[in-house]
Order: sequence, then C-alpha cells, then structure tokens
Amino acid sequence: MIRVKLGKNVLEANDDMAGKLKEQYKKHNIKVINLIGSPGSGKTSILERTLPEISKKFNVAVIEGDILTSRDADRIKRLNVPAVQIQTGGSCHLDAGMVGRALGKVELSRLDLIIIENVGNLVCPACFDLGEDAKVVVASVAEGSDKPAKYPVIFNRAKVCILNKMDLLPYSNFSLDEFYKDIKHVNPGLRVFEVSSLKEQGLGGWLEWLEGLVADGGKEN
Amino acid sequence: MIRVKLGKNVLEANDDMAGKLKEQYKKHNIKVINLIGSPGSGKTSILERTLPEISKKFNVAVIEGDILTSRDADRIKRLNVPAVQIQTGGSCHLDAGMVGRALGKVELSRLDLIIIENVGNLVCPACFDLGEDAKVVVASVAEGSDKPAKYPVIFNRAKVCILNKMDLLPYSNFSLDEFYKDIKHVNPGLRVFEVSSLKEQGLGGWLEWLEGLVADGGKEN
Repeated sequence: MIRVKLGKNVLEANDDMAGKLKEQYKKHNIKVINLIGSPGSGKTSILERTLPEISKKFNVAVIEGDILTSRDADRIKRLNVPAVQIQTGGSCHLDAGMVGRALGKVELSRLDLIIIENVGNLVCPACFDLGEDAKVVVASVAEGSDKPAKYPVIFNRAKVCILNKMDLLPYSNFSLDEFYKDIKHVNPGLRVFEVSSLKEQGLGGWLEWLEGLVADGGKEN
Repeated sequence: MIRVKLGKNVLEANDDMAGKLKEQYKKHNIKVINLIGSPGSGKTSILERTLPEISKKFNVAVIEGDILTSRDADRIKRLNVPAVQIQTGGSCHLDAGMVGRALGKVELSRLDLIIIENVGNLVCPACFDLGEDAKVVVASVAEGSDKPAKYPVIFNRAKVCILNKMDLLPYSNFSLDEFYKDIKHVNPGLRVFEVSSLKEQGLGGWLEWLEGLVADGGKEN
C-alpha cells in the first residue's frame, strides 16, 4: 500500500512539472513527440530515417533517454541534428524534470519540433507525462503480435503506433490479424504505420502524419 | 533526491523479503531461475521449448509475471506444467512479495525447480531480487547488438544469456562481434547460448546448463 501512495505522489509531482513544460512548448510554438518502445524496437533507426526528411521543412532537436551510454545521441548528431543525451542512471523512464533540464541545452526559440526518445521500456514511460503533444509507440514485428494486449497502457495512450521490422514478417510467426484485433480493443482510434526502417519502406504515411502535426501551428522555416 | 531515498527503502524491503524466499527454497531444496528480457524477446517461447525436456527429469513449476492478461500462464498450462500468473497491475517488475504470495499456490514439497518469467523489461527487474539462484537474461537478435552496453545492469547480474532468434541473423544488421565485445566489458563470465526457439535450434547447451543447476542439490525424481 505504501508503494502505491509513493507512486501517486511521484506521478503528481511529474504532472506538475509536465504542465510547466507544456507552457514552455506553447510559448515557443514547438510540437513535441514522445517516442516509446521496447529495447531494440528500432526507435533510433526510425529517427535516422525520419530526421533527414523532416529537417528539410522544420527545425528539429532530439532528446535521447538512456540508462547509460550516449550511443543514441551520437547516432543522431551524425545527421547534423542537435541532440541532448539524458543518462537516467538507472531510472527506467524519463520524467518531466529530466526533460526540463535537457531543454536548457537547446535553442527553444528556433525550434518547431522536439522528438524525445524515451528509455527502451513499454511500461513506465507510458505513465510519465513529458508535456508532449503525442506519444508514439514503436513496436516491432519480431516482438510478436500480443504486445497491445500485454502492454495496454502505452497502446491506449499513444496517438500513433509505428509497427517496425515489417521486412521480418515472412520469417516470424507474427499475426497482423491478432495485432489489429487487440488494438481495436485497447485503442480503436490508434493510427498504425507499418514500416521497415532497415529497408526504408513504408515511412511515407508516418512522415506525412508528423509533418501535419508540426504544420498545425509550426513556424515557417 | 527524495526519489532515490524512497527507491532505496523499497529495495531494502524487497531484499528482506527475498531473504525469506531463499529460506523457503532452501528448505524444500528447490532451484529458482529468474528469466528477464524485453517484451517479445521470446521468454515464453523459450519456456515452451525448455519445459517438455526439463520436466522429464525434474518437477517444475512456472510463475508468470505480466502487467495484464494471463496469456503466458495459459501457454505454459497447455504443456501440463503448473503455472501461476501474477498480474502486476501496472508495476514494471515482479517483487519478492508478489512471488511470496504466488508460492502459496504451488506444492513446494514436490518441486525441484521454479522458473519465474519476469515482466517484459530489461531495466527494473534486474534490481529486484526474487531470491533466485540465477538471473537469466533473454536477448533477441532482432533487438540489435548494443543491448549489453545500454542495459548493463541486467547483463552484469545475469549468470546466463540466451541469445534468441538466431534464425533472423541473415535478415538483420546484428553484429555478433559487437555483442560479445560489449559482454566482455560488462560481464566477462557470462555464459551465452545462441538459440532459435522458433526453429528449435541450439537449445542443447542451455538445457544442459539448467539440468546441471537443478541436479546440483535437486531431489531424485
């Protein structure tokens, strides 16, 4: 019982801080995406495909969350996109306070879009609001089709699901029918984009959705 | 700072409870495995390959941890192995208290081995001792070769790593060289078994290791 109470206080404190982040984003007219997925679902690879395209039209920065290492931020910086690495030092999710501190390292006044790549984890990141406009859940065909049913919170709270590694479909026992059946149950309005970041396939719909989100209130470049 | 202090208290309380579990396991001469891996790394599939073999020699029960659903326990029960489902109701890991309550639902006096399948998560389960003899980390080729460096705590604390989905090696950009280089850094003594649960390949070494662990102090069947 005590643990639940502590959990609530932690979440309430986070929500307060997330509210302050929202004000900052709004003041600078910045849209924010919170990318959430299992370790190895392909979040950074998706970013490597997304950033060169979205950067043609908008000013973007990336905040990378990892327990340890700055490997993901290094991959993003190679694309000439500003990236801030948060090392959570054990915490399994980003919280609004960590993001607030990271915001001090980017030029908010010139940005249209911030993409936050959360720690690889389908559970806790779903519960910690970072003031984002949309949570995007990245799932991989290799993980199996039962993930929406087994991790319903993130699939329920996300606006978009990127189903990655579609190129592995012929080599796995993933069932698209079961996947969509479970999604209909947990979040019938979820937009799903089937992509392969390795083969650079199917990314058009996702990019169009993201550009639409930023254009809706984004600055001119 | 407060969060860290709370975290410590929670972990200390867990360690106390894990100590009591250890006493119970010892009293009944039961070996215990704590299976940890990302969502979709193939923990349940590995169990589906492991249980029919290990059950020929030893009495086994499985404890399944999931946020929601009893799908994994249902899969295990189909193999005629006793399985207890713990639904954590939001918690991203099993703790020793949850396992203690689940033990009330199995016949400890007749068991040689309990396999605990933790919640799909590479982070927090690594820190919550369940009184086990060994943590076994399940990683999948589809997740990419950088996982030991990015999630060092679990790779450091595990005695064994099952590298699953080796059948996907030709279709991925996974580098065995990088994987083993990072493992050498975080845990040079880690035993790694390369397997494909889908193709039923490479499981011999893992089964031999597990049988060795149980035989070391296990009851006669």
